[in-house]
Amino acid sequence: MTNSKIGTYKFPIDAYLTDFRGRATLPMIGGFMLQAATKHAEERGFGYNEMTGNKRAWVLSRMAIEIFEYPKNDTVLTIKTWVADVNRLFTERYFSFEDEKGKITGYAKTVWASIDLATRRPTNVSGLDELVAYIEKNVDCPIEGLKKIPALKDNFEVVREFTVKYSDLDINKHLNSMKYIEHIVDVFDIKMYEQKEIKRFEINYINEGHYGSKLDIMKRDEEPDTIYILEMKDGETTICSSRLVWK
Amino acid sequence: MTNSKIGTYKFPIDAYLTDFRGRATLPMIGGFMLQAATKHAEERGFGYNEMTGNKRAWVLSRMAIEIFEYPKNDTVLTIKTWVADVNRLFTERYFSFEDEKGKITGYAKTVWASIDLATRRPTNVSGLDELVAYIEKNVDCPIEGLKKIPALKDNFEVVREFTVKYSDLDINKHLNSMKYIEHIVDVFDIKMYEQKEIKRFEINYINEGHYGSKLDIMKRDEEPDTIYILEMKDGETTICSSRLVWK
Repeated sequence: MTNSKIGTYKFPIDAYLTDFRGRATLPMIGGFMLQAATKHAEERGFGYNEMTGNKRAWVLSRMAIEIFEYPKNDTVLTIKTWVADVNRLFTERYFSFEDEKGKITGYAKTVWASIDLATRRPTNVSGLDELVAYIEKNVDCPIEGLKKIPALKDNFEVVREFTVKYSDLDINKHLNSMKYIEHIVDVFDIKMYEQKEIKRFEINYINEGHYGSKLDIMKRDEEPDTIYILEMKDGETTICSSRLVWK
Repeated sequence: MTNSKIGTYKFPIDAYLTDFRGRATLPMIGGFMLQAATKHAEERGFGYNEMTGNKRAWVLSRMAIEIFEYPKNDTVLTIKTWVADVNRLFTERYFSFEDEKGKITGYAKTVWASIDLATRRPTNVSGLDELVAYIEKNVDCPIEGLKKIPALKDNFEVVREFTVKYSDLDINKHLNSMKYIEHIVDVFDIKMYEQKEIKRFEINYINEGHYGSKLDIMKRDEEPDTIYILEMKDGETTICSSRLVWK
């Protein structure tokens, strides 16, 4: 248990989990972020158990990850995380990534809502005293903020369809937050990964993906070979939208 | 560094990785086994680096996992592993699983070959003195052994097809050992997981799955609702075969 506003967590990058480049993948890094966020909140009195006790749950709404250097296998990734802001309906949580030498290798920003488990409606986050007490506004997270990714109306192509399966599900029987990312990064050809890297990844979680649903992924090239907007849909319902910047 | 024949490793079962039942999945447990095996071998002088230095690599050939009780989220799984036997072309590595109270919750057996990285041919494993020195024949692993799973010749149906994607690949650009398992367990409907559990899972790794290949999964019900044989094929080439016993 700690009272410091910033939580520091270490994650070994196991070789059997890395991609063909021997590097951590975005879904892996996203998973570590969730783990760090969960521990940070639990240690400070606004974690999963406290929320459930009040018939509420944290819901990840938006996420932006910028990676300057992907963690290599058999190294240890350090993730620092803190509550950057709280307003009525949302709280922002930021992250920084460090390699074993303490060099900053990336940053991330996330936005969370807290829903009422009975009504599934958003609740007032700024009423959570334990959360508000830990706001830390003085730490730098020098990446672009979290913006709404516009829906794809034209100039897109359907690049993939898949059915939500057992391994895609989280404990609520919805598409697992990290599986959203896995299905999105799999849209790109391996040649892209051989030549470039995803420098910035943004996702807006909009609706839940359900078991057995057949989901489509649409893609629009905003800037050829560099910027892409993707949208995952279940029929007419948008499940998530995402923006990727390659370098 | 340790000289004991049995290696003991602990793995926290993170909530964000468990399935809809809040339990560790088979691909997760298989991944932890690989991690434990890797560490055990490294600590004793026959790990990845030593093998690569001799232009060789370990290749997982067969695996059988029996789980009496799947690990629950927010608990810690203890895996013990040891070298059970070594003969000319193969070595057997066994595992036991324990919950936080030290209760045995499962066992596993694996068979490994060592290939020459240049010729891709099997090498003589019994010549590895460091490996042979650590054979431990006196520890119980009371589950059925590793048998060859027969090829499906008739009475099967093609239940799934998928294309090998970026997230499926390991560091050698082949289908990741754990992704074989993930694609296989995803053949079954969620209703099966709601009512039963996979008690025994066996897999024979036969050929490598390559990026972009379209693989088929065939299934035969050996004993309705209980025993299934599955085969993954790339055209006429068998990639793996698997046998599952549900309870």
